Amino acid sequence: MFTLPQKESKAPTTCPGPASTQDLDSNHGDGLERECSRKPDWKLPEFCGVGDPTATASSDSSHLSSRGSIIKWFWDSAEEGYRTYHMDEYDEDKNPSGIINMGTSENKLCFDLLSRRLSQSDMLRVEPSLLQYPDWRGHLFLREEVARFLSFYCKSPAPLKPENVVVLNGCASLFSALATVLCEVGEAFLIPAPYYGAITQHVYLYGGVRLVCVYLDSEGVKVKGLILINPQNPLGDIYSPGELRDYLEFAKRHKLHVMVDEVYMLSVFEKSAGYHSVLSLEGLPDPQRTHVMWATSKDFGMSGLRFGTLYTENRDVATAVASLCRYHGLSGLVQYQMAQLLRDRDWINQVYLPENHARLKAAHTYVAGELRALGIPFLGRGAGFFIWVDLRKYLPEATFKEEMLLWRRFLDNKVLLSCGKAFQCKEPGWFRLVFSDKAHRLCLGMQRVRQVLEGKSQVPDDPASCQSQESGNQRSGGETPPAVL
Amino acid sequence: MFTLPQKESKAPTTCPGPASTQDLDSNHGDGLERECSRKPDWKLPEFCGVGDPTATASSDSSHLSSRGSIIKWFWDSAEEGYRTYHMDEYDEDKNPSGIINMGTSENKLCFDLLSRRLSQSDMLRVEPSLLQYPDWRGHLFLREEVARFLSFYCKSPAPLKPENVVVLNGCASLFSALATVLCEVGEAFLIPAPYYGAITQHVYLYGGVRLVCVYLDSEGVKVKGLILINPQNPLGDIYSPGELRDYLEFAKRHKLHVMVDEVYMLSVFEKSAGYHSVLSLEGLPDPQRTHVMWATSKDFGMSGLRFGTLYTENRDVATAVASLCRYHGLSGLVQYQMAQLLRDRDWINQVYLPENHARLKAAHTYVAGELRALGIPFLGRGAGFFIWVDLRKYLPEATFKEEMLLWRRFLDNKVLLSCGKAFQCKEPGWFRLVFSDKAHRLCLGMQRVRQVLEGKSQVPDDPASCQSQESGNQRSGGETPPAVL
Repeated sequence: MFTLPQKESKAPTTCPGPASTQDLDSNHGDGLERECSRKPDWKLPEFCGVGDPTATASSDSSHLSSRGSIIKWFWDSAEEGYRTYHMDEYDEDKNPSGIINMGTSENKLCFDLLSRRLSQSDMLRVEPSLLQYPDWRGHLFLREEVARFLSFYCKSPAPLKPENVVVLNGCASLFSALATVLCEVGEAFLIPAPYYGAITQHVYLYGGVRLVCVYLDSEGVKVKGLILINPQNPLGDIYSPGELRDYLEFAKRHKLHVMVDEVYMLSVFEKSAGYHSVLSLEGLPDPQRTHVMWATSKDFGMSGLRFGTLYTENRDVATAVASLCRYHGLSGLVQYQMAQLLRDRDWINQVYLPENHARLKAAHTYVAGELRALGIPFLGRGAGFFIWVDLRKYLPEATFKEEMLLWRRFLDNKVLLSCGKAFQCKEPGWFRLVFSDKAHRLCLGMQRVRQVLEGKSQVPDDPASCQSQESGNQRSGGETPPAVL
Repeated sequence: MFTLPQKESKAPTTCPGPASTQDLDSNHGDGLERECSRKPDWKLPEFCGVGDPTATASSDSSHLSSRGSIIKWFWDSAEEGYRTYHMDEYDEDKNPSGIINMGTSENKLCFDLLSRRLSQSDMLRVEPSLLQYPDWRGHLFLREEVARFLSFYCKSPAPLKPENVVVLNGCASLFSALATVLCEVGEAFLIPAPYYGAITQHVYLYGGVRLVCVYLDSEGVKVKGLILINPQNPLGDIYSPGELRDYLEFAKRHKLHVMVDEVYMLSVFEKSAGYHSVLSLEGLPDPQRTHVMWATSKDFGMSGLRFGTLYTENRDVATAVASLCRYHGLSGLVQYQMAQLLRDRDWINQVYLPENHARLKAAHTYVAGELRALGIPFLGRGAGFFIWVDLRKYLPEATFKEEMLLWRRFLDNKVLLSCGKAFQCKEPGWFRLVFSDKAHRLCLGMQRVRQVLEGKSQVPDDPASCQSQESGNQRSGGETPPAVL
């Protein structure tokens, strides 16, 4: 580990020191991906910053501890966008002028396939051992299945071992547990920015651990680890084996733990993108400090199922995480279902993955075509559920206030996006646009985006041009370029 | 809240100050109820005590933080009894000389009823909303069902409200979340002792909160709340409405939060015991500081299902807990199942509860009869799954070392019990004996207990006297007295 030097005079304006409320203000994305829903005039005068849980938070309630107030603040500050969305959710029949959600990174393209598979009779098995206290690391039958699954899909050089697997209710919990067992309060992980903003909360709320963007402008904080998200969120970037190895070697030199979050590993829909899991590498530089995370939330479009897993060769880390797993446990019945799902390779390989990739690609192609028609630069990497969109030219001034105003114009025009600030982006004007949704909703969403950008905001009445037909996805027809920008 | 005075010279030997390793040593019971499995010669020389997570723990690993080492220590120290049990679990056919578990508080009497109900086709419903990110407080349909369920079974004077319900994966998580949002690190809750030892970990591992036994011998620690378990664990005591009100008024005078854990509320199998939920009281003294916990782990014999719920009128506390619920979430599919179960009043009232209570009563009657035949005093209150047994006369000396040796003699003779130290009992020689198991296993377990106490330890070869027949439960035939001691 190492301690970052005191920051120099010119800290980037977009990544303020941790003592700034601005810093927090941009970090309310979470499992719900409530990004970019902060109130610009929100005040938390006595808040002393992420990384110091003993800070005295201003509280409107005498019933919570100071950290309780901070925890509640994260919830409240995320409410605007998400609550607005949930009070006025688009529904083709019941609420056609409701809000289209292009902000939350969920894959809504394959519920038909998933419902069919999960409704099969083999999914409902009730036996006493599933109803009793589990092994908190996860039932052995599931850990065995996870090890086989990851060995195959991560292309590991040797079979992965069930004893290195710890199963829990999602990667948010895993970030929380790892931060707690690896760091003292106030220590930090490095993370390449822009990054999935929810991680800020995951490592902070229980663990009191902060994140340091890799542009390294923070003050005297002891760095304990590095977080890599591969494929990256929000950029969609895929690390090459060489890049991965560089990161791992760097981490080893500095005795840093590396947490590799691979929740989008099976959502690479462009074969040419050439994804490599860190578990495919021959000879990890520092296996005792390399911890891999995967979940079904993204790759199997089931964020509500709450299944995630850790793979680490470090037995102490696995045990310490397991010790916290009594707070992150998942039902024995769900463990059984997940084992059934993961072992059904025929369905995964012949039904789910090909269809899912085809649908992701079609949806991406459609949105990319729309963006191109609007003359909007973007990153689209052939992986993940989102496109990183450059709307800088639509800001009258290059400020986050203007970015926020644009975000709100989108919301007022009934389309929810995520703004760059929620990902700690340095430059105002970037947005993440989620495309993994049905053609009909995508079409409407893109119309509403276009209206805002062309200064003609008004909610369309579900126009005939957005028919509820899957063919709508295919309209631009062409191949997706790996990147426009 | 108030600050306890510095302790007087004569602290009870059995409830040492928090800086003692002895204190920790006795607190490794957990969700797995790994009570009484410590190694007596275990050393953790630099451990600075529960309540101070910045303490430097002795660690055999340079990869964990100091709190990570403490967290791992809780796991490791719990291993002896539980690991021994799991490596040699009794099975009527496959391992008849394996260990009988009379230590873990699980109800194993009704798996047949539960399996039948949970296997019905209405339990497997897969729809998109269940697979997407949930409302972290719990799906509304489930919170509505919980509110109706608690209104009915707690006999609330007015209908309880869904907006006061937060659903999560078990009461262990709820203790963890409440400790974190109500207390600063190092603050404390009061708890009447002896108490269910696992709570020590639940409030400490993430929250850094300690427990203070009500004999009030701890040092200068700020007390923020009071924990009541009703029916009590391990005593089986039931608080009368008057006692409950006294506790609540006391708490109000001192501005203490009260967490009322009612996980055994439907496991009162003696009608004469007259149970009253705190939610049945007209006009709670301090509703903003009264937080009620319930789960299906005990009352529905499903500790592996991971379903628990908070009921509080304090909106700030509910929100702050909800904010942590992303780390304690349960699958949408399980939420659906739980709603189905809780709304099936016909099954609950006409099938499950009467049968469950009859079986609990028969099992209790049998074990109570055996204890009486042995001349062993005990508490058996007609509620819960356990009997609090006085084995003081079997200790050559009144020390916890002797208690430990007796516990190990039981384990060596293939029966796992929980010793009083794991519950912070002041006097050595008390044991908790779980009776909620099938007649055949109870009979064998009691034989092994008897052998140890009569100095004739040897594992029986599944003697004919313990036939695998439910009628075995009935052999002592008589009524259970509410209490012998």
